[in-house]
Amino acid sequence: MAASQTPAEPMRLVVSCADRPGIVAAVSRFLFDSGANIVDSSQHSTDAVGGTFFLRMEFTLPLDARPDFEARFGAEIAEPLRMSWRVWDSRRRKRIAVLVSRYDHCLLELLWRWRRDELDGEIVLVASNWENLRADVDGFGLPYHHVPVTPQTKPDAEARLLEILAGNCDLVVLARYMQILSGDFLERLGVPVINIHHSFLPAFAGAGPYEQAKERGVKLIGATAHYVTAELDAGPIIEQDVVRVSHADTVEQLTRFGTEIERVVCARAVRWHCEDRVIRHGNTTIVF
Amino acid sequence: MAASQTPAEPMRLVVSCADRPGIVAAVSRFLFDSGANIVDSSQHSTDAVGGTFFLRMEFTLPLDARPDFEARFGAEIAEPLRMSWRVWDSRRRKRIAVLVSRYDHCLLELLWRWRRDELDGEIVLVASNWENLRADVDGFGLPYHHVPVTPQTKPDAEARLLEILAGNCDLVVLARYMQILSGDFLERLGVPVINIHHSFLPAFAGAGPYEQAKERGVKLIGATAHYVTAELDAGPIIEQDVVRVSHADTVEQLTRFGTEIERVVCARAVRWHCEDRVIRHGNTTIVF
Amino acid sequence: MAASQTPAEPMRLVVSCADRPGIVAAVSRFLFDSGANIVDSSQHSTDAVGGTFFLRMEFTLPLDARPDFEARFGAEIAEPLRMSWRVWDSRRRKRIAVLVSRYDHCLLELLWRWRRDELDGEIVLVASNWENLRADVDGFGLPYHHVPVTPQTKPDAEARLLEILAGNCDLVVLARYMQILSGDFLERLGVPVINIHHSFLPAFAGAGPYEQAKERGVKLIGATAHYVTAELDAGPIIEQDVVRVSHADTVEQLTRFGTEIERVVCARAVRWHCEDRVIRHGNTTIVF
Amino acid sequence: MAASQTPAEPMRLVVSCADRPGIVAAVSRFLFDSGANIVDSSQHSTDAVGGTFFLRMEFTLPLDARPDFEARFGAEIAEPLRMSWRVWDSRRRKRIAVLVSRYDHCLLELLWRWRRDELDGEIVLVASNWENLRADVDGFGLPYHHVPVTPQTKPDAEARLLEILAGNCDLVVLARYMQILSGDFLERLGVPVINIHHSFLPAFAGAGPYEQAKERGVKLIGATAHYVTAELDAGPIIEQDVVRVSHADTVEQLTRFGTEIERVVCARAVRWHCEDRVIRHGNTTIVF
Repeated sequence: MAASQTPAEPMRLVVSCADRPGIVAAVSRFLFDSGANIVDSSQHSTDAVGGTFFLRMEFTLPLDARPDFEARFGAEIAEPLRMSWRVWDSRRRKRIAVLVSRYDHCLLELLWRWRRDELDGEIVLVASNWENLRADVDGFGLPYHHVPVTPQTKPDAEARLLEILAGNCDLVVLARYMQILSGDFLERLGVPVINIHHSFLPAFAGAGPYEQAKERGVKLIGATAHYVTAELDAGPIIEQDVVRVSHADTVEQLTRFGTEIERVVCARAVRWHCEDRVIRHGNTTIVF
Repeated sequence: MAASQTPAEPMRLVVSCADRPGIVAAVSRFLFDSGANIVDSSQHSTDAVGGTFFLRMEFTLPLDARPDFEARFGAEIAEPLRMSWRVWDSRRRKRIAVLVSRYDHCLLELLWRWRRDELDGEIVLVASNWENLRADVDGFGLPYHHVPVTPQTKPDAEARLLEILAGNCDLVVLARYMQILSGDFLERLGVPVINIHHSFLPAFAGAGPYEQAKERGVKLIGATAHYVTAELDAGPIIEQDVVRVSHADTVEQLTRFGTEIERVVCARAVRWHCEDRVIRHGNTTIVF
Repeated sequence: MAASQTPAEPMRLVVSCADRPGIVAAVSRFLFDSGANIVDSSQHSTDAVGGTFFLRMEFTLPLDARPDFEARFGAEIAEPLRMSWRVWDSRRRKRIAVLVSRYDHCLLELLWRWRRDELDGEIVLVASNWENLRADVDGFGLPYHHVPVTPQTKPDAEARLLEILAGNCDLVVLARYMQILSGDFLERLGVPVINIHHSFLPAFAGAGPYEQAKERGVKLIGATAHYVTAELDAGPIIEQDVVRVSHADTVEQLTRFGTEIERVVCARAVRWHCEDRVIRHGNTTIVF
Repeated sequence: MAASQTPAEPMRLVVSCADRPGIVAAVSRFLFDSGANIVDSSQHSTDAVGGTFFLRMEFTLPLDARPDFEARFGAEIAEPLRMSWRVWDSRRRKRIAVLVSRYDHCLLELLWRWRRDELDGEIVLVASNWENLRADVDGFGLPYHHVPVTPQTKPDAEARLLEILAGNCDLVVLARYMQILSGDFLERLGVPVINIHHSFLPAFAGAGPYEQAKERGVKLIGATAHYVTAELDAGPIIEQDVVRVSHADTVEQLTRFGTEIERVVCARAVRWHCEDRVIRHGNTTIVF
């Protein structure tokens, strides 16, 4: 009977604060006293003296200890230690909205992994400034919102997107959404936004990365998943990977290899985010 | 003044025991009460219910808390929780003995990284059943013990090796030592032995791995570093890596690529061991 | 007008024969005299003296030179030099039949790449001993043949498969088809069969490769695409790749990583085959 | 007796010219008529119509056909087809001069591979603006030229280097030589110069690449080998590779990982150059 009262889905705690002795002891004591069993724990400190400390813990917790856990942790641990923190009950899965333009590869990879239950999150809607991917999205039983954008209608389009997204998702993924979002939009959206960039940032930022790569004659091409900030292509990097290319590859072939690595990098970043493994720290990330 | 009493070199604690709630709380409380500051911590459990729990912590500790730390931890934490455990003061660096036959690549990689202080250990001696690498080892200011082995003299050779090694090292590395060590020798030696195997185990165990790889037409070749047990090529794997090859590569070229990947894999395994990152668990390893 | 008579789609010539001086000169002279322009050429010799020579050439060829090209090449070059050879007009794309059981990942990767025109071939049908993937295949507008197999009905099932496949495809891909095909079936089928194996062959042949990998504690897991022969898991390897894993990965996670690398390896092998880049040589392959 | 007249060391021919039909036929016919047997051949065309064609052939050639081979090829083939070309008799190994500052890792990797005969070239001298690596170089029996450089003495230092290098080497390798060479120096030197750059170019050009990488929070760091041109860090790229890093890696650890990948990338580029596999094409390379 006790077993039935402790869900298999763990709680997750993510913390950052000024480093000082005793943080792990305080947190783990609190968890033990709450009836938790830690099943995974990762920590990092930028510097043991005067640095910033980061902690992620996954722990089982009985059902009856869950309702007031967050409030108690805040009052007893987080406030005294001046922590930035969040708690997530993994029984609730993150709701993902995908924004896309006309290229299908990242969108389909996400839809497909979602169907295989490999994202640790639920895709709840797709929005696009194009119409061409509606049938694919229909096949997965998801709503497809067509929100056209032109330079003139951008404010209206962002307002329409906000109506669609706000309050309906915990994460927005730009799965090759070829529009720049305004700082105001990002602020009002209020949830993290992940972008997949078609190059190994900071190289080849901006348009035509494969043309740039071909011209520079590089021997590897890459992809980068990063959180979106108001500054284009400059947000905190979550994941990057590369693939080997040669002089024989045309821009078309570079593009094809690029789509393969974009799919992989995008899916990894989304999954890690949904598992609360990624912590932003200034313009970088801690990935546990 | 307090700062001068806390060495920069951390202590390391490695623990394995039956998993149960409260282990992290008990250990971290003990460390906090001892004046320690945890700077790195990793844990793993094979199963939260009924599994085995593994923990590695690195922590700074004032000088005056170090002498009786091990005894107190044993009495207050490890015994009550029935832990397998070890504590290592990283001011003391592990002493490494290298055994080698006639191939130089793994030996030289280790000597060179040792000189660059990249091993987190001290190479103290080299022993070989060949004479050909003496000049190289001399150049690094290390003793070179020539211990010839024939099928007839193997027991004598092992006895001679035991005289050289026993009590003089904390780790033995077989850097392409082409002799099988008896179970009796390993037992009397009493320190861990790491072997670098020239293939991606368990494929191509035994002799002639590159000939086997060529014949089977594989597209990748690898190397494996593992702890040595009495059973040949079957000990716990520490690290593996591979390199891409093609039909155009001859056995000689496969061998050359193989030596490159052996150097890398061997050096990683030795460093990780010296940093107390590797825990044996049955016939596998946990690498933190 | 001349340009309109030379299709952009090249011809492909693949040759193997005993190595001797003058082969390239003879072939390239023949091509030049036929009005061809070589756009890609690769060659390999197992040994310049007494070895086997392999050649693959891609060349543009005017329309009016195509009808009798094969016959002329056979008579003037291939027969005198005792070549094994084939010519392929890339205007005709290879017809691919996919056999699958209940796992969808390799099948969907192939269908999807086919839709993106990344396979250099046309998937023409899917056959399965399961029913569960019919809706997916329907979505791509392809016939889905359900051919159940039991130990008792295997001969009947193979006979039914032969009816479906024979004469209707140039390549069969076992995209996780969990049935062993008889030597008799393979012979009567008469076209190449590619299998994707869920491990780094020759390690972990047979069933339960991820369980085997977990038990052995390997640090990399892989996938292998190979031509199917009557001997299980022993046919010529076309492509292999690996992904890094750790002690923290469960069998389920190893399986998930495994499916990712299977998708990539399977798609590469199929594409290379369709582009006539793979030549069998005994139990190995040349991949140009 | 014929066999004894055909050295095992092949001749190498490297060609680039405007693409047009018949080039391979003409070259391979000439080789056949000269008594050559092609053992390896690679070609590439940027575009079959109006593009540039590149060809590298390795062929055995009897001793008595070697003396006038180059002159005859020039007159009969290269001039009529307006080729850029070079012929290299691999019995003569390329003489390599290494320039280095105070970091030893690329230098030692090259010296060591040279001793193992893995470079396909002969290191003939080392020059440095530091004194600290003299003993290492002495150990390999090579001259070590100390040529100090200050901003004031740079012209004198370059003049001194020219005395040392000019006519004495076929390739100069900057194995972490932390001085910028003038365009005038490069021109008067007259042989190719390879530089190893400590980042994945074009990202993190200039100083402090690991500090830049840490600040940007990248998940991969790389190294680039390229030919030196008058424009800093902008010459044709020969080879690049990367290694995975994480938030936990300090600048010091990034630097250590960086040195490992620099060693590998530098050694590959030098070997490929010595084997005449690298052809410059504008600001890119063809690597066969």
